[in-house]
Amino acid sequence: MNQVIYLVPALGIIGLIVMAVKSAWVSKQDAGDKNMQELAGYIAQGAMAFLKAEWKVLSIFVLIAAVLLAYSGTIKEVNGVEIHSSWIISIAFIIGAVFSATAGYIGMKVATKANVRTTQAARTSLAQALKVSFTGGTVMGLGVAGLAVLGLGSLFIIFLNIFSDLGENTIKTAIEVLTGFSLGAESIALFARVGGGIYTKAADVGADLVGKVEAGIPEDDVRNPATIADNVGDNVGDVAGMGADLFGSYVATILATMVLGQEIYVDDNFGGMSPILLPMLICGLGIVFSIVGTWFVKVKDEKSNVQAALNIGNWLAMILTVIASYFVVNYMLPDDELTLRGVPFTKNGVFMAIIIGTIVGAIMSIVTEYYTAMGKRPVNSIIKKSATGHATNIIGGLSVGMESTVVPMIVLAAGIMGSYHFAGLYGVAIAAAGMMATTAMQLAIDAFGPIADNAGGIAEMSQLPPEVRERTDNLDAVGNTTAATGKGFAIASAALTSLALFAAFVGIAGISAIDIYKAPVLAGLFVGAMIPFIFSALAIEAVGKAAMDMVQEVRRQFREIPGIMEYKAKPEYEKCVEISTRASIREMMLPGAIALITPIIIGFLFGPEVLGGLLAGVTVSGVLMGIFQSNAGGAWDNAKKSFEKGVEINGEIYYKKSEPHKASVTGDTVGDPFKDTSGPSMNILIKLMSIVSLVIAPYIAVPNTGGTVGGACCMEGKMEMSGKCDLDKCAKMTPEECASYCDKMGCSAEEKEACMHMSKKHHGNSSCMAGCEHNCSNKEECQKNCGDQCASMHASNHTCGDSCEHQCSSQDECQKNCNGKCSS
Amino acid sequence: MNQVIYLVPALGIIGLIVMAVKSAWVSKQDAGDKNMQELAGYIAQGAMAFLKAEWKVLSIFVLIAAVLLAYSGTIKEVNGVEIHSSWIISIAFIIGAVFSATAGYIGMKVATKANVRTTQAARTSLAQALKVSFTGGTVMGLGVAGLAVLGLGSLFIIFLNIFSDLGENTIKTAIEVLTGFSLGAESIALFARVGGGIYTKAADVGADLVGKVEAGIPEDDVRNPATIADNVGDNVGDVAGMGADLFGSYVATILATMVLGQEIYVDDNFGGMSPILLPMLICGLGIVFSIVGTWFVKVKDEKSNVQAALNIGNWLAMILTVIASYFVVNYMLPDDELTLRGVPFTKNGVFMAIIIGTIVGAIMSIVTEYYTAMGKRPVNSIIKKSATGHATNIIGGLSVGMESTVVPMIVLAAGIMGSYHFAGLYGVAIAAAGMMATTAMQLAIDAFGPIADNAGGIAEMSQLPPEVRERTDNLDAVGNTTAATGKGFAIASAALTSLALFAAFVGIAGISAIDIYKAPVLAGLFVGAMIPFIFSALAIEAVGKAAMDMVQEVRRQFREIPGIMEYKAKPEYEKCVEISTRASIREMMLPGAIALITPIIIGFLFGPEVLGGLLAGVTVSGVLMGIFQSNAGGAWDNAKKSFEKGVEINGEIYYKKSEPHKASVTGDTVGDPFKDTSGPSMNILIKLMSIVSLVIAPYIAVPNTGGTVGGACCMEGKMEMSGKCDLDKCAKMTPEECASYCDKMGCSAEEKEACMHMSKKHHGNSSCMAGCEHNCSNKEECQKNCGDQCASMHASNHTCGDSCEHQCSSQDECQKNCNGKCSS
Repeated sequence: MNQVIYLVPALGIIGLIVMAVKSAWVSKQDAGDKNMQELAGYIAQGAMAFLKAEWKVLSIFVLIAAVLLAYSGTIKEVNGVEIHSSWIISIAFIIGAVFSATAGYIGMKVATKANVRTTQAARTSLAQALKVSFTGGTVMGLGVAGLAVLGLGSLFIIFLNIFSDLGENTIKTAIEVLTGFSLGAESIALFARVGGGIYTKAADVGADLVGKVEAGIPEDDVRNPATIADNVGDNVGDVAGMGADLFGSYVATILATMVLGQEIYVDDNFGGMSPILLPMLICGLGIVFSIVGTWFVKVKDEKSNVQAALNIGNWLAMILTVIASYFVVNYMLPDDELTLRGVPFTKNGVFMAIIIGTIVGAIMSIVTEYYTAMGKRPVNSIIKKSATGHATNIIGGLSVGMESTVVPMIVLAAGIMGSYHFAGLYGVAIAAAGMMATTAMQLAIDAFGPIADNAGGIAEMSQLPPEVRERTDNLDAVGNTTAATGKGFAIASAALTSLALFAAFVGIAGISAIDIYKAPVLAGLFVGAMIPFIFSALAIEAVGKAAMDMVQEVRRQFREIPGIMEYKAKPEYEKCVEISTRASIREMMLPGAIALITPIIIGFLFGPEVLGGLLAGVTVSGVLMGIFQSNAGGAWDNAKKSFEKGVEINGEIYYKKSEPHKASVTGDTVGDPFKDTSGPSMNILIKLMSIVSLVIAPYIAVPNTGGTVGGACCMEGKMEMSGKCDLDKCAKMTPEECASYCDKMGCSAEEKEACMHMSKKHHGNSSCMAGCEHNCSNKEECQKNCGDQCASMHASNHTCGDSCEHQCSSQDECQKNCNGKCSS
Repeated sequence: MNQVIYLVPALGIIGLIVMAVKSAWVSKQDAGDKNMQELAGYIAQGAMAFLKAEWKVLSIFVLIAAVLLAYSGTIKEVNGVEIHSSWIISIAFIIGAVFSATAGYIGMKVATKANVRTTQAARTSLAQALKVSFTGGTVMGLGVAGLAVLGLGSLFIIFLNIFSDLGENTIKTAIEVLTGFSLGAESIALFARVGGGIYTKAADVGADLVGKVEAGIPEDDVRNPATIADNVGDNVGDVAGMGADLFGSYVATILATMVLGQEIYVDDNFGGMSPILLPMLICGLGIVFSIVGTWFVKVKDEKSNVQAALNIGNWLAMILTVIASYFVVNYMLPDDELTLRGVPFTKNGVFMAIIIGTIVGAIMSIVTEYYTAMGKRPVNSIIKKSATGHATNIIGGLSVGMESTVVPMIVLAAGIMGSYHFAGLYGVAIAAAGMMATTAMQLAIDAFGPIADNAGGIAEMSQLPPEVRERTDNLDAVGNTTAATGKGFAIASAALTSLALFAAFVGIAGISAIDIYKAPVLAGLFVGAMIPFIFSALAIEAVGKAAMDMVQEVRRQFREIPGIMEYKAKPEYEKCVEISTRASIREMMLPGAIALITPIIIGFLFGPEVLGGLLAGVTVSGVLMGIFQSNAGGAWDNAKKSFEKGVEINGEIYYKKSEPHKASVTGDTVGDPFKDTSGPSMNILIKLMSIVSLVIAPYIAVPNTGGTVGGACCMEGKMEMSGKCDLDKCAKMTPEECASYCDKMGCSAEEKEACMHMSKKHHGNSSCMAGCEHNCSNKEECQKNCGDQCASMHASNHTCGDSCEHQCSSQDECQKNCNGKCSS
């Protein structure tokens, strides 16, 4: 094995070391006065309380799932199809779950430290405040990316060693077992995202309804028992949830590319593993360049543009990664043409696909920003509609959200077609990987937002001087925009990742097509497309229910604890934290179960092709609902925020507390669960369902046939893989070449025999079977070049008529070859 | 040609005669006093003004489209694929457009007469008021169904005669030209539905915002300049729009079944046309049984249950039609097994599919009713949420709407699978036709609602005694429920119809699969699924814009015409009518263009398979968005209505004008464009795009190949149709049988030769090629039974290994047959 494989975990470790250094730096910063520290302490405790409660529940789930997976790993054959798995998949699953939870933990730990330190830093300068908050975000980003690359890279090496005695099945088994790691990561991500999303919005809505509306005290007032829960929510949802989400995406993307890469036969210097190692290596390098990018995120003085500083770092990381990809691709992949499932491509095509992935990610971010940013047409249209009431504000937001799906869907479609054009399905997967390579940087920018938000809250609660709040507000405003673009990035990556997983699933399930023209597959598509709707409905409902519980508790405390209002008694913050914690964990069960169980039921009842239809439905409708809800929510939020500085509607200026502002608050409240609970959950929903399908694929795989009709004949025409050996390749080799190829690939005796058979049959005219009627101009030539089978095809009138203009150079020849049909 | 074919237009004429009688009866009823007649006159004039303006614009569109169609009809070949069309398709298109417009006109004409007569009848008794309003609805229902069956039936006969000299292509050409009729009908339906939807909601919102909110005058007050436009809107949107919609559905469903039926080879007493005639005949009989059903819709006294009366009539019509279908199916279809695209089925299967269609329609209606009816959980949950404000009301409605997609999507999926199971794709199509057979009755029930609504408005404006209003309110309340169930029915029929059209499209486009696993097809799915979102966004936006225009005009009149408020001056109703008319016609253009042009662009740029992906995306996302928006809107509406009688929330009773009621009004306003503009447009959007695709299918058709890989070999395995002759059938016949079959089917010489080739090749073992490896246990047997090709397949290791447990009875046999691979 080449040394390059060890570079992958090494890059992950570099990321983690830098993370540790930055984390230590954050801890060393001044945490402010005692009051600030006390408030920050409550938030940190609440966040940990949630994580602990969540982990307790999830550990039960993880154990049960691990047992089932371990059992599944012992099954060696289903319906005559061999399965290359092992009970070790359960270990991979547990490690994935633990890593995912750890990534969330690291992010939350540093965020709850960085928030108060940012507040303190904001007392001195904007530059310092940005440095502290962005370093906090960087810790999160590097933690997620570092753990992912380290986990995938080292587990892959370990599994290759464990299964080294399986011969030609070593790599296949190693990757199959590695899917367990991704499944573990994504399962935790779903619960973290949904649970966190419910938590944060339940606390937010509950705190507002009783505190602001009923008791008339301002937001973030220390007298409100739910205020700590509200601030905890920011960390639980926006930091830990987001971190687990992107950890899952990152792992799933790399894994899907590895699964597809494994199918490609390559004659390289890396034991044929270059397409497998490539995505890991690019993502590993992405970590390094993200670190480089972070060096450029700084501002000089109070007037500097924070957004511009972030953009410079982000673009630099992306451009460096793309440039590095060019060299890595050229170094690793051979110059020969590669083939995946009949689609040939070159290494230049692979590089083009990476560029396309990066561009798609960038455009998605820009479009999201346009639809949710203040001062742009969409948000302005909502502001204008707020003048005529609550209903028109809602209608405006809904229509903005729906409209915002147009460009992203077209860009995604173009990205899919483009990357496929350049490098087949591997291109689609590597495009997603290229896009995700700078996840560390993306996440740093993303996580900095809630840290700044929290810092502002602490400044408010501690009644610090106005310039402090001004500085944190500056950071917070930028954070709102980066949060929106981060969501656009996340949904684009999820769409491409699901597609790559989808392709991987098809390969493992042994089907060669997902034909929606078949009624059961179309039925699957219908049911699949419905799932994001019910998932969203449940998530939104859950927020409503949990908020009601919170309202009851806050009312009870105001009623039963005398002196709260006069600052004489301290509210029982922990009770509210507990309610939010309990409610969110209770309510995340059903949506989580739907995501996990549906593919299993459909897969085992109706087979892989219907499950494929279901996945396509989930993906397309999930992406749409995700974009729609996130952007509508973001636009409503910024429409409301616009009133803080005053907005002009039909010549009049309106501020906070005006009627239009009240209407905009309604929109914002509707948008809250949209953009922070159900919308971002869509990403994980579609990825998780794809991964579950990928894991169960071997167990529901069908014997290799071309569908209900066609049978053996079709299969040969399609030149499926036989184990490690690509029959299509064999058909193009001489028997000698084929024998050496099979030995190199470590094919089993059976596979070699199948390959040799192919080679012998077709030797003389390389791609005879693939386009038999085009290669030979008449039956005799066919017979000579390609043997009986091709000749018999050639004699068929049906074949002959279909492309006869390509086959015969004159009418007479046609007449002779095709029995008259063609000559007309 | 058998006489049965003439029965079809005859049944249509029966429907129209009964319609004329009932229409005359309505006209003869007492129209009330002068004041009532004047008000009704304004409404009738406004409605006609809209229709005329709409027709003026649409006639330009129809002429341009007709010229393009006529040109397309002259093209005889594209890419080597023969096209069987004619310039006459433009005539069919124009007739379809005119019939559709006429159906809307009839309905609106009678509705604007029946409304005031219902008011007058309500002065005497509930029974009489129901009789007048329901008879008005019946006229509409019979007009739509009668025109559709008459048009399709008679045009089909005429086209068969016109093209009788085309030999085997007569039927194919006749049906291809007939698609023009459906295209015409559906185009007008789209504009009628969208334009009408925008009209009615613009007037409604505009009248309310200035009249109720700003001027403080009650709803339906004669002083409000927009009140007439508001009442006109009910007729334009709910009557004419709905009528054109169902006319389009009805025609498209029958046509799709005919297209598929044409592909089935039948040895019957109807010249092989029984599967083509069957849907027309069943729908024709449905008209007769709908007439029978209407006899049972009556109530005895004031306390009778109106809903029950409607249900009895509806169920009776459905049951009678199903029973009649049993006899018709048995009479027309032969006892032999039929085959469509490789799926065999019997006539019993066809009948089962009809039953499934009816059941799906019924369940869809019931589910819709559950989600939108007062007193049920979903509406109650919205009421409860209204207590905590506007935002929670909105969240509640959105989540109810999303949740309401679950059961319908599962029912549709089950219906698709079930009907496909029983009778293949023909089963899916005939299920839709069975469901649509009682459209006359459905529409009668549906159209009765807005008539009763208008009657109530006239009663209010004319200040009639309270018992009159009580009676019309009773009818109106029932009308709300029937409107919701009607929408459920319409969306279910649209889904099944699109599916049938989808299947018809695939056949004509010459593709054998729509494989979403291919990247470009998946890209098509993504873009397609986005279209209902942008369509909805545009429709919702259009309502907002048009309402703003209306607000300006009403304000202007209040300002510039002195004395309106004191009843001294009459407002300029016609100005408001004109604004609504102009705005709705202007705003319906862009969404209409998207629906019409997108399939053409995608089809010609990317080919039929990508277009297939697009259609699947539009269908699945359109059905979801349709159900979501219609049900959310209906639930919000009834949540608001519930406050009229008072609702209990947490132990307190709330009435109109309470805070929760205000929140519920917000929900209702948001729901208005959802349920009356964008939601119901989804039906037509998906059908229209399918029909446009069907019409252009021959021009984008690909030569019959099995996709990018496989080539000739696959094609043979799949046994495609060669013209009228099913190669699959030929393969099972002896050469003698095949020759007689080909002669009977009117196959061309080429087709016959292809068939004979198949037959000769496979004779000896009927379905040899379809499952060659299962039919022969070893190579020799294969060789003997199925010839060289099968034998060569059998020798392949690859084939052998795949299902070797089915092929060899012992290890030794395996060893011998499969060269050792299998024996392990």
